[in-house]
Amino acid sequence: MKKFVNKVDNILSESLIGFGKAHSDIIKVNLSPDYISRKNKPNKDKVALISGGGSGHEPLHGGFVGYGMLDAACPGQVFSAPTPDQMEAAANEVYNKKGILFIVKNYSGDIMNFEMGADMIDHDNQTIIVNDDVAVEDSTFTTGRRGVAGTMIVEKTIGSLAETGASLNECKSFGDHVNKMTGSMGVAFTSCTVPAAGKPTFELSVDEMEFGVGIHGEPGRRREKIKSADEITKEIIETILEDLKPENNQEVLLHVNGFGGTPLMELYLLFESAQKLLVNKNIKVSRSIVGNYTTSLDMAGGSFTITKLDENIIKHWDSPVHTSSLRWKI
Amino acid sequence: MKKFVNKVDNILSESLIGFGKAHSDIIKVNLSPDYISRKNKPNKDKVALISGGGSGHEPLHGGFVGYGMLDAACPGQVFSAPTPDQMEAAANEVYNKKGILFIVKNYSGDIMNFEMGADMIDHDNQTIIVNDDVAVEDSTFTTGRRGVAGTMIVEKTIGSLAETGASLNECKSFGDHVNKMTGSMGVAFTSCTVPAAGKPTFELSVDEMEFGVGIHGEPGRRREKIKSADEITKEIIETILEDLKPENNQEVLLHVNGFGGTPLMELYLLFESAQKLLVNKNIKVSRSIVGNYTTSLDMAGGSFTITKLDENIIKHWDSPVHTSSLRWKI
Repeated sequence: MKKFVNKVDNILSESLIGFGKAHSDIIKVNLSPDYISRKNKPNKDKVALISGGGSGHEPLHGGFVGYGMLDAACPGQVFSAPTPDQMEAAANEVYNKKGILFIVKNYSGDIMNFEMGADMIDHDNQTIIVNDDVAVEDSTFTTGRRGVAGTMIVEKTIGSLAETGASLNECKSFGDHVNKMTGSMGVAFTSCTVPAAGKPTFELSVDEMEFGVGIHGEPGRRREKIKSADEITKEIIETILEDLKPENNQEVLLHVNGFGGTPLMELYLLFESAQKLLVNKNIKVSRSIVGNYTTSLDMAGGSFTITKLDENIIKHWDSPVHTSSLRWKI
Repeated sequence: MKKFVNKVDNILSESLIGFGKAHSDIIKVNLSPDYISRKNKPNKDKVALISGGGSGHEPLHGGFVGYGMLDAACPGQVFSAPTPDQMEAAANEVYNKKGILFIVKNYSGDIMNFEMGADMIDHDNQTIIVNDDVAVEDSTFTTGRRGVAGTMIVEKTIGSLAETGASLNECKSFGDHVNKMTGSMGVAFTSCTVPAAGKPTFELSVDEMEFGVGIHGEPGRRREKIKSADEITKEIIETILEDLKPENNQEVLLHVNGFGGTPLMELYLLFESAQKLLVNKNIKVSRSIVGNYTTSLDMAGGSFTITKLDENIIKHWDSPVHTSSLRWKI
């Protein structure tokens, strides 16, 4: 296994300590239980947003803690749900008089542990389940659709609304709305290697891809020969659009996400391919983001996410944000 | 070859078009000759900064075009120098009454083509050669030391100085100073695959690493068995410090750069390892940046860069910047 590592058991904690030191102006890291929280308390009462999930998808979620986005993130071991005591401790630290909103990707382990965490706290709380992956219903770790790269868009937009002092119900309802407006789907060229396993999670032959792959390497719709970028893009984008059913002249946010092992050059090529296709379908790409935001360790491949935009989503996407991985206007 | 591609010959142009569309608020892309330039002319006369080099290192350099950094970037084919007509066209577009400063990584092809480009323009111009790689003297494509991840730091800081209206001589002299204060060194766990070649540039067995590798996969100091993250970090950091000879209590910027195929989790682990070591040597890490900024396509591995800080470098590092890959306070 070719990784920068001292002891496999310590990867997460050593990485978290480094993360805390590298971004000590924005966040602080608590160990045992592990959670990342905003360094400075917000200036006014607000709903506290807490997300989390298995590690290995960085910068999701820890990279999105900060002004205008998350108040805390709970990282589990690689590809494993965080434990309830992490959510309990994070919630008690970042509670800010307006209740707690948990943002959870739809995996059975995450759902269960976030529920148990929620039961352990005394503060009002609600939960948003993100399930933007249109590839498959039910999968290795999921009942229903998986939560993938659209999570970042949900976190950014609710994060912005929460900063305005909106109520817990308003934040919950807006987050559910953004999730509903969002669809994603991805393709893998290679597996990733989970450090504790020390070998690739699955095998793909040299000319194969996993179409509709999950962000832990879960099976997608089928395994097939690699196609051209335009062919891959077309099938994914059309599948997402069947789900989202955009209006004519619909304005959208287009997110091309890399899984970790694919060069930026290829991600921009995918963006071009998708943008051209969407224009031909009378869909207007008015916001865009390209890069490695929801990764699967070293997996080669990537995903598309489309969010149908309305005035409110645009406002809360464009607003200032100051985290280690998304930062603008601040 | 597992890449998102339509035709290998079109990867660069399709990717550039996508880059231009995804960031149309910041930059514009010109094709044939290829260059990326700031979308809006600066508000006042300033030295125009132009960098460039082979593609495949993204976000370097195109991702650093925008307010507070580069005025233009000239991308060559993958790992090939840009041609002189690119530099000529870019210079003629972004010239802003105070001369042109070229920022060139020290590779023989880049040096030659930038010189020829400079000869083709009528404006006053000077060139900064970045040669921060302390691993080896002379290499496959270089006489002297190679220019690697420190280039981003040179571009950020001169970019900031240029925005103040500083003269060409002042910018040139400050850039040379930042380059001199900066040292880098990296290690590769895998080769990258250049699209036109279709196969890995070099072979490393499953337990080997290339110590002191170049960003095109050029040989480093030696090939050896993979060591622990702490051992790798220690040798690299000590080699950089031997070169930079910091004072006791020296303040530094520590940059951990991923080559493309290494997860963020491991880069933060490297940051922790280096930060701890530097503290023990009475060196103060007061600025930091961790991520994939100077990549080698899909290569697994990474590098450390240290810049010795003074008041001026700190001021121009911290100042506002608005590019597609570095953005803060704006």
